[in-house]
Amino acid sequence: MDTNQLKKAAAEKAAEFVEDGMMLGLGTGSTVFYLVEAIAKHVREEHLQITGVATSSRTAQQATSLGIKMIDINDAPTLDLTIDGADEIDQNFQGIKGGGAAHLLEKIVAINSKRNIWIVDESKLVEHLGAFPLPLEVIPFGCDKVFQRLTAENLQPKYRLDDKGERVRTHNKNFVIDLHAGTIAHPHLLADWLDHQTGIVEHGLFLDLVNTVVVGKESGVEVLQANR
Amino acid sequence: MDTNQLKKAAAEKAAEFVEDGMMLGLGTGSTVFYLVEAIAKHVREEHLQITGVATSSRTAQQATSLGIKMIDINDAPTLDLTIDGADEIDQNFQGIKGGGAAHLLEKIVAINSKRNIWIVDESKLVEHLGAFPLPLEVIPFGCDKVFQRLTAENLQPKYRLDDKGERVRTHNKNFVIDLHAGTIAHPHLLADWLDHQTGIVEHGLFLDLVNTVVVGKESGVEVLQANR
Repeated sequence: MDTNQLKKAAAEKAAEFVEDGMMLGLGTGSTVFYLVEAIAKHVREEHLQITGVATSSRTAQQATSLGIKMIDINDAPTLDLTIDGADEIDQNFQGIKGGGAAHLLEKIVAINSKRNIWIVDESKLVEHLGAFPLPLEVIPFGCDKVFQRLTAENLQPKYRLDDKGERVRTHNKNFVIDLHAGTIAHPHLLADWLDHQTGIVEHGLFLDLVNTVVVGKESGVEVLQANR
Repeated sequence: MDTNQLKKAAAEKAAEFVEDGMMLGLGTGSTVFYLVEAIAKHVREEHLQITGVATSSRTAQQATSLGIKMIDINDAPTLDLTIDGADEIDQNFQGIKGGGAAHLLEKIVAINSKRNIWIVDESKLVEHLGAFPLPLEVIPFGCDKVFQRLTAENLQPKYRLDDKGERVRTHNKNFVIDLHAGTIAHPHLLADWLDHQTGIVEHGLFLDLVNTVVVGKESGVEVLQANR
């Protein structure tokens, strides 16, 4: 099976966690595309009453077009469940997100959700985080100073560029700097340091947020559950 | 003397700290307006070569119009000196800024400066911080969730509104939430907690940044120097 089939299989399995009456957070990305399709099918066939909150206009448009009622996060009570993709997940269920430059909005939705589930193909599971470059959302004013501080800390920053060689802009018109420093030995220490850096709006380390990961594998879909 | 005269006297004293060849950070606000005038006078009369970095377009325009060469912070080396106002300064030279909703850019300039000086009238000196509401710059997406968390922490948040009753927008199009919780007993603990809150871009606590405060008093201008 190709990666898309693995993602689709995981997304369909994850959609089974959606229950009638839920307030649901929906992530962003290629796996979530399949998820929204699968949830919409459940909603149609089982007449589920669910309401969604999206982390991107793309997801919001797709969900709305498929008949899922979407509202703004500010109008929603605490979310029952958020399902999202991830760029890398380690053995302790810690993750890196932000490959789609949406990690700020994704984290805001995730921390306002009682439960978070990630859906990935098996290539995203790693022993230690860091092979995937860690995304940072950075305020343009003074961004080169942030870049210098990251360089001085040996975190090997690179501005993320689009196809035309322009710096990628996030939903909030900020830049993305990716850290290519390799293995992240101490995710909490790095997250803490990054949290304190003025000019960095949010980093892509998603720690202690997820206990359930749905993995699309060649051998079938597997639901991993953390022991905590 | 009225407050403006006190501010002006302090600003003129602070301008004496500017030396030929300096790369200078210039803050924002009513006191800084007098400062820029005073610096421009020194530049003209003493033929100083200085280059400035501004924390707002207002300051940049004023400085440029008075013949001070201004550049973008990303094009500047580490600043030699930044002079800015403050909304409140305690006995340990810790401060609150953000009354002008510019504390994000002001903090970015401050932390990239070898030395920071604040200029205030004497009404800004307090024993403990907190009578002045603490400003936060907050991402609009999910801002009401941040507001709820602040309320739950008993920090008495209020959205800052403009004259028309609309929410104030910062340079980066974010909202401002002011914390009306009174005396801040432990500034570093509060700053640390706020640093970790997703959705809060920056808070107005400026800690361990300033050793020199120039105060306009009825009895004259006083230069306070921290013992550290």
